[in-house]
Amino acid sequence: MYRIGIDLGGTNVKAGITDKEGNIIIKSKIKTLSSRPYSEIIEDMANQCKKLCDDAKISLDEIESVGMGCPGAITGKTGMIEYSNNLNWKNVPMGAELGRLLGKQVKISNDANVAALGEALYGAGKQYDDVIMLTLGTGVGGGIIIGKKLFEGNESKGAELGHAVICLDGEPCTCGRRGCIEAYCSATALIRLTKNAMNEDKQSLMWKLVGGDIEKVSGVTAFDGEKQGDAAATKVVNKYVYYLSEAIMNYCNIFRPQAVVLGGGVCAQGKNLTDRIVKTCEEGWYGYRGTPKVEILTAVLGNDAGILGAAAL
Amino acid sequence: MYRIGIDLGGTNVKAGITDKEGNIIIKSKIKTLSSRPYSEIIEDMANQCKKLCDDAKISLDEIESVGMGCPGAITGKTGMIEYSNNLNWKNVPMGAELGRLLGKQVKISNDANVAALGEALYGAGKQYDDVIMLTLGTGVGGGIIIGKKLFEGNESKGAELGHAVICLDGEPCTCGRRGCIEAYCSATALIRLTKNAMNEDKQSLMWKLVGGDIEKVSGVTAFDGEKQGDAAATKVVNKYVYYLSEAIMNYCNIFRPQAVVLGGGVCAQGKNLTDRIVKTCEEGWYGYRGTPKVEILTAVLGNDAGILGAAAL
Repeated sequence: MYRIGIDLGGTNVKAGITDKEGNIIIKSKIKTLSSRPYSEIIEDMANQCKKLCDDAKISLDEIESVGMGCPGAITGKTGMIEYSNNLNWKNVPMGAELGRLLGKQVKISNDANVAALGEALYGAGKQYDDVIMLTLGTGVGGGIIIGKKLFEGNESKGAELGHAVICLDGEPCTCGRRGCIEAYCSATALIRLTKNAMNEDKQSLMWKLVGGDIEKVSGVTAFDGEKQGDAAATKVVNKYVYYLSEAIMNYCNIFRPQAVVLGGGVCAQGKNLTDRIVKTCEEGWYGYRGTPKVEILTAVLGNDAGILGAAAL
Repeated sequence: MYRIGIDLGGTNVKAGITDKEGNIIIKSKIKTLSSRPYSEIIEDMANQCKKLCDDAKISLDEIESVGMGCPGAITGKTGMIEYSNNLNWKNVPMGAELGRLLGKQVKISNDANVAALGEALYGAGKQYDDVIMLTLGTGVGGGIIIGKKLFEGNESKGAELGHAVICLDGEPCTCGRRGCIEAYCSATALIRLTKNAMNEDKQSLMWKLVGGDIEKVSGVTAFDGEKQGDAAATKVVNKYVYYLSEAIMNYCNIFRPQAVVLGGGVCAQGKNLTDRIVKTCEEGWYGYRGTPKVEILTAVLGNDAGILGAAAL
């Protein structure tokens, strides 16, 4: 038996057929063209799935489950996409509609959760039962895997791991509160820290790296500056590592997972980032004296995490 | 079939026989006398269990499981009490020893976890599948119940819900970090806030309440002062409610449980406390706009939570 996993994004729909061991047999990508009526998009997705089956010479009867990851607020139980900013959707009955077209039950979850599940089951976390994933991008997404299963909370509205306050009355967060992990550990936060440091130190090498244009600062500017020996850049990276380590130690104490997996653009820094986090966490006893070590890893699956996680729903 | 639950504390051992519905059939209490060799204490506990069976005319064969809550660091899988400050124990093979004397497998967990399980299954949280419990005492203990089961993390070292930082570089915590929930939301923290406010305002009514002796400040001083219209006391209570609400909203975002149950001495304030927390959480959208409401409740079982939770392990 096989599974279909769909990774619905604002630009592309990626879909694939997987086996139970998490190997992608075949995959394809179509444009979402998200300004169209949603029914057209759902029809295209159904056809995409059917074509994948045809191409792989697998009948729909051999597909035991269909899963989908989608950006936005989704109620897993009903398969309803209540709200998706990226797709400009409100109350789209995705599970019911796509399910009808494919003659299958379709399980849906938030794309961050789904990617976390894929990475936990088949990627960096595959040796472990309990994995926390933090995706460090524009925001900070999260996924909680307990006993190799996704934990989503009531109405699938939990696992908002970026939206826990670590600094009372701190930096404003997109969610309306102040001091959330997202406001300190996202790539956006790293860029803010970098810009602040550059404005305080007009001699910093980082100015050269962005050709004098502070709007060109990205999540790599500080890391690149540090490699070239810039003291202001090192300070920024150290501060960012400190924030991230405190957030990770919180999740160590709360979940004591076997592994924390970091995803998102910042993680291209690989061991340069994780070794420093491990060092800080070791000094802080992984949050608590005498507790077992938690592996701190970066994601390895890239874009396939979405398909694999969706198929595993 | 019946179950035995044991609540081992530094002063007393409380034990009881329960049915599967969580009714205590019979219970008893003996002195721990914790300075004795641990083997004597374990023998006394075994005899206590046997006597409960005799008194209730239930044979040991009718006992399907034995569970125990114990203060300290416990590895559930092995039944080993690695370290208990209250009992001054190190590496006590409780599960194996008591199991041998009773001819039963004995499951052991941390007493905070066990009380949370009891309260979640049979007390304030009994209508709900996913419950977070915070016990506000000298420290802040926690329990995570997911799908009506206790989640403890790797080597039972998770669910340290009091030891997540909400204030980077904040007040020192007993765990060695700074700014933990415990350092802001425990009764100890409330007492610190109260003393600080009194030292800043020598006219505060709270001085009268403690007969002029600041060492007599307790977790009720500020609440009592507020009831009598003292402005400094109201400020303290408001600050404490703010800290507690931020911590609770964090756990709403992380777990999105159906209920958060508060235990410990401070919760004697009942709805005077929870109504204010609910108000603050409502204003903050329970941590995130558009997310389902989380019930904020106080514990109802008192001391029986330990026996009932242990029996349910």
